[in-house]
Amino acid sequence: MPTTLNNIAKQGANGAAMMPVIQGVGRAAIEIAAVLRGAVFRGALGGAGSENVQGEQQQMLDVLSDEIFLDEMRSTGFVCAVGSEEQEELLVIEEYSHADYLVLVDPLDGSSNLDVDGPVGTIFSVVKRKTPNSDTPHVSDTLQSGKEVIAAGYVLYGPSLMMVCSVGDGVHGYTFNPGSARFELSHGDIRIPETGGYYSVNESNKDKWLDGMGDHLDRMKADTGLGMRYVGAMVADMHRTLLKGGVFLYPADEKNTTGKLRLLYEAIPMGFIMEQAGGKAMSSGIAVLDIEPEALHQRVPVYLGSHTNVDSLLG
Amino acid sequence: MPTTLNNIAKQGANGAAMMPVIQGVGRAAIEIAAVLRGAVFRGALGGAGSENVQGEQQQMLDVLSDEIFLDEMRSTGFVCAVGSEEQEELLVIEEYSHADYLVLVDPLDGSSNLDVDGPVGTIFSVVKRKTPNSDTPHVSDTLQSGKEVIAAGYVLYGPSLMMVCSVGDGVHGYTFNPGSARFELSHGDIRIPETGGYYSVNESNKDKWLDGMGDHLDRMKADTGLGMRYVGAMVADMHRTLLKGGVFLYPADEKNTTGKLRLLYEAIPMGFIMEQAGGKAMSSGIAVLDIEPEALHQRVPVYLGSHTNVDSLLG
Amino acid sequence: MPTTLNNIAKQGANGAAMMPVIQGVGRAAIEIAAVLRGAVFRGALGGAGSENVQGEQQQMLDVLSDEIFLDEMRSTGFVCAVGSEEQEELLVIEEYSHADYLVLVDPLDGSSNLDVDGPVGTIFSVVKRKTPNSDTPHVSDTLQSGKEVIAAGYVLYGPSLMMVCSVGDGVHGYTFNPGSARFELSHGDIRIPETGGYYSVNESNKDKWLDGMGDHLDRMKADTGLGMRYVGAMVADMHRTLLKGGVFLYPADEKNTTGKLRLLYEAIPMGFIMEQAGGKAMSSGIAVLDIEPEALHQRVPVYLGSHTNVDSLLG
Amino acid sequence: MPTTLNNIAKQGANGAAMMPVIQGVGRAAIEIAAVLRGAVFRGALGGAGSENVQGEQQQMLDVLSDEIFLDEMRSTGFVCAVGSEEQEELLVIEEYSHADYLVLVDPLDGSSNLDVDGPVGTIFSVVKRKTPNSDTPHVSDTLQSGKEVIAAGYVLYGPSLMMVCSVGDGVHGYTFNPGSARFELSHGDIRIPETGGYYSVNESNKDKWLDGMGDHLDRMKADTGLGMRYVGAMVADMHRTLLKGGVFLYPADEKNTTGKLRLLYEAIPMGFIMEQAGGKAMSSGIAVLDIEPEALHQRVPVYLGSHTNVDSLLG
Repeated sequence: MPTTLNNIAKQGANGAAMMPVIQGVGRAAIEIAAVLRGAVFRGALGGAGSENVQGEQQQMLDVLSDEIFLDEMRSTGFVCAVGSEEQEELLVIEEYSHADYLVLVDPLDGSSNLDVDGPVGTIFSVVKRKTPNSDTPHVSDTLQSGKEVIAAGYVLYGPSLMMVCSVGDGVHGYTFNPGSARFELSHGDIRIPETGGYYSVNESNKDKWLDGMGDHLDRMKADTGLGMRYVGAMVADMHRTLLKGGVFLYPADEKNTTGKLRLLYEAIPMGFIMEQAGGKAMSSGIAVLDIEPEALHQRVPVYLGSHTNVDSLLG
Repeated sequence: MPTTLNNIAKQGANGAAMMPVIQGVGRAAIEIAAVLRGAVFRGALGGAGSENVQGEQQQMLDVLSDEIFLDEMRSTGFVCAVGSEEQEELLVIEEYSHADYLVLVDPLDGSSNLDVDGPVGTIFSVVKRKTPNSDTPHVSDTLQSGKEVIAAGYVLYGPSLMMVCSVGDGVHGYTFNPGSARFELSHGDIRIPETGGYYSVNESNKDKWLDGMGDHLDRMKADTGLGMRYVGAMVADMHRTLLKGGVFLYPADEKNTTGKLRLLYEAIPMGFIMEQAGGKAMSSGIAVLDIEPEALHQRVPVYLGSHTNVDSLLG
Repeated sequence: MPTTLNNIAKQGANGAAMMPVIQGVGRAAIEIAAVLRGAVFRGALGGAGSENVQGEQQQMLDVLSDEIFLDEMRSTGFVCAVGSEEQEELLVIEEYSHADYLVLVDPLDGSSNLDVDGPVGTIFSVVKRKTPNSDTPHVSDTLQSGKEVIAAGYVLYGPSLMMVCSVGDGVHGYTFNPGSARFELSHGDIRIPETGGYYSVNESNKDKWLDGMGDHLDRMKADTGLGMRYVGAMVADMHRTLLKGGVFLYPADEKNTTGKLRLLYEAIPMGFIMEQAGGKAMSSGIAVLDIEPEALHQRVPVYLGSHTNVDSLLG
Repeated sequence: MPTTLNNIAKQGANGAAMMPVIQGVGRAAIEIAAVLRGAVFRGALGGAGSENVQGEQQQMLDVLSDEIFLDEMRSTGFVCAVGSEEQEELLVIEEYSHADYLVLVDPLDGSSNLDVDGPVGTIFSVVKRKTPNSDTPHVSDTLQSGKEVIAAGYVLYGPSLMMVCSVGDGVHGYTFNPGSARFELSHGDIRIPETGGYYSVNESNKDKWLDGMGDHLDRMKADTGLGMRYVGAMVADMHRTLLKGGVFLYPADEKNTTGKLRLLYEAIPMGFIMEQAGGKAMSSGIAVLDIEPEALHQRVPVYLGSHTNVDSLLG
């Protein structure tokens, strides 16, 4: 019998507690993938008429994916509340409001890619509540730094369906096997390579970047000779960086002066994974995991990759 | 959004506790269905060389299904042990041996039907442990009568994948929707019809039945004019009886003098469902749910169906 | 690489010509199976308000399946017309009305079984036109005896999806492999066993059968000791009989005095398969394949099975 | 009933002839997609030990995909030979060597992307043979310019499965609908937008490009302000360019002095689609469709996109 998500129960101090929660993420992934495959036939690629809390036009699939994810967190029985990039407020799960864990999620990252049948993803992290279990969970429970994250990971919806996650005991990749209808271990103990790979950024914006990052990038390109890829979906660009090496960056620019990526929904979970895989995760002069969050929808600059390449870029 | 298995949380006194467990059954069902679809290509239809504890030749798919079911019960985090028709001993789930519930299962009922691509099923029930949570769960925890069952149901693997279950608040049927990759409510509040339907039994054995059941059947046929169907897989024959009416019977005979169906794995779960749907579930002169179990693999005669037809048969 | 439907091209004199047509049947099967899996969610299990040409209440899935089958026959480019149990008239495929072959089909046999998630099937046969290719194909092209059939077979929609077919060079069974998304050879050169198996009939009607068939059956039961199964879907009952042995019968009765099964859509294709598998296919005193059809929707009594059992029944 | 691939039969002069062939491409697509989903579990992502005819290390999935594609072309009955990027020689289909059409295919374009679960594609085109039907088809039959192509298209394996194709009567996109198990029209009459979109190229190589293309690109970036995306799989980069606008380029460079993309397998089919969608397809000073092919595996520089952007780049 192949190794399934159940083996998470044996990983580290939090594995047994996190296993049912990550199983729930896996189920949400399977369901979201099914919805994505047939999305064009339910008119779900059109806009839903409302904007998300960051002011972007929401697509119906974002809403559907959010609903599916929340539903699966509820069905685990171990999650008291969910903070979602798609929701302004923390969502409390009434039936299990006494449970120990909160999950933070970007249910459909890179969703504009769906118009061109490009890869998209789901990003999640899990923290333990700070308020007493008898209280209603509070938004302050979610404002924990990356050092307090217990588990994190992402799902990649590509030609195959993958989940990469960590409970603080290394990073492991699971692929959905249609023959058994479950996730099975396909990429054990992922370590980012120190050489090779690609740099990944929307280079067309280079002259608008702050902090001299345009020059930094040019110097790193000259130093390393790295090739370039930019899918424009963080999960896809992160996944390639993790497996092939290199660096992914999203600097602050004239328009997004504090950066564009969300600290809680994107930077911390991906930084957690990157460090667990032996890589480096930086923001502006501070490690991503050292940032103390102040708000649910806070944004930061992000530089993720191998030590060699992140240092070459920022050094 | 359609009604999913999560709505079980709102049913009766045990719904909220049973929901994550039944979600686990649903996932096992999806995975077993996937294995069945491709079984012929993994050589899984041949015998595995060992006999099951009732002395029947086990097939590899029985073993696989059992393994899958156990794995999904473990992944819920709410089940301390599983009693399986495929296992002589109670299986304790070490990581969660303190949990409240035990599940009894026939993971692949009617598996000989697979040779002819006929329908098969999974039958399950849930009881609360009687031993203290700090103890290792014991086989005595499973020897509870049908009156103490908290939840029960079955999965039918046919042209579509269905789960029918009850937490003591009526019977509801859910169908796997491939478009959303989850079970959705398709048959709300199932009630067995008092008229119409079929009688269902291997009539070729009639002259070997004990208790004069051959004559009983002839009289009932004459009285009711019911048509006949006999798939030879209990779940399929039960499901048709539940939806269309009539009666399903498996009397004792010269060879199986106490009946052939297992009390804990087949009779009680199906009896629980039948009574919850307004029907009647009898054994030899006693209601199925009134029998006090004495052994994990005990067998009994079974008569399930509408009140009218069961009474006509046994009266 | 496993053996796919393409190997039909190497079977006998008609294999190469029949291969693209049977590929089309395979595709229709895959599409109908997909529709069946989600049928309950499109309300397709309810009646469509019209009766079929034999006066039975049609279900929407019959109509959908018929549409799908016709569409796939059109897409082969080798079929000039289709005669369907669901259609009173022959359907001419305008774009390819010059092509050589006509297909006869019962697109969804046993469809009432779908209410209880029971197995259903598709039955087909292929004949060569008698009218000149330059003419519009005519219903007379379809009125050919079983001796003139070039290819025939059936699809069984059960826990797995199977197609069993013959181009006059033995009978071969293919199972849809979800891992490769195509039919692969799973049951090469099927031969019906002479011993073992089941008799299969709605025995509750026994006293209404004509031609003394009730007594015939009782005698055969006593002689052979065969067990009984009756799914109530011809494809399922036929498939089990083919693989396990025994006999399937549908005699004439007081209500259906010439029998209930359709000669062109059910009796001839199944008779062709049964004989190709070494079995026997009889109607009232004549081999099924010797009957000269007189009308598209003609009905006949049918007795299919091993030589031993058919002879024991009718002798 | 939704519009399926069968509607190709009604498009232009060649639609009826091309429909069964494009149906075959659709089936190959479905099968390749299934193989890709489970590829990691069959070890198919590792190299197969042989190099392809362009000297690149072949992956097993390339070989499998090629085999699947050829098998489906055979099963149409309308294709006499296939030229594949994976095969040095033309593959003649013996059973149908008299048929009218040849298909050229890159069965798994961008396959190195599979290591990171990134999108890949299949690219195809169809030409009519020039040799007499009674002869064995010859490689010279494939050396036809883009002006003689009858049909072309591509398949994109992303979160959903899409086929985009043209029989010379506009470009139409079909998405595989898992609910019906077939391709259905989702993007009717695709026209490339004249404004907006992205430029797409591996910009890290800019200083090695020939023909001053680095300067050309810088000028175009300044002129248009286009954003950047580069997936590194031609089908994905082409598909986005087609739907969103912009330009895709693969210039000649110091290493690949005549360009890297294959004329027959990549440039012509994509150029055909781009022109049919109202865009422009250039090579070095000549329209792609005007190039007279000289060898099966010939390479050329490629610039595909909207008129505005291609002109801005090359002007």
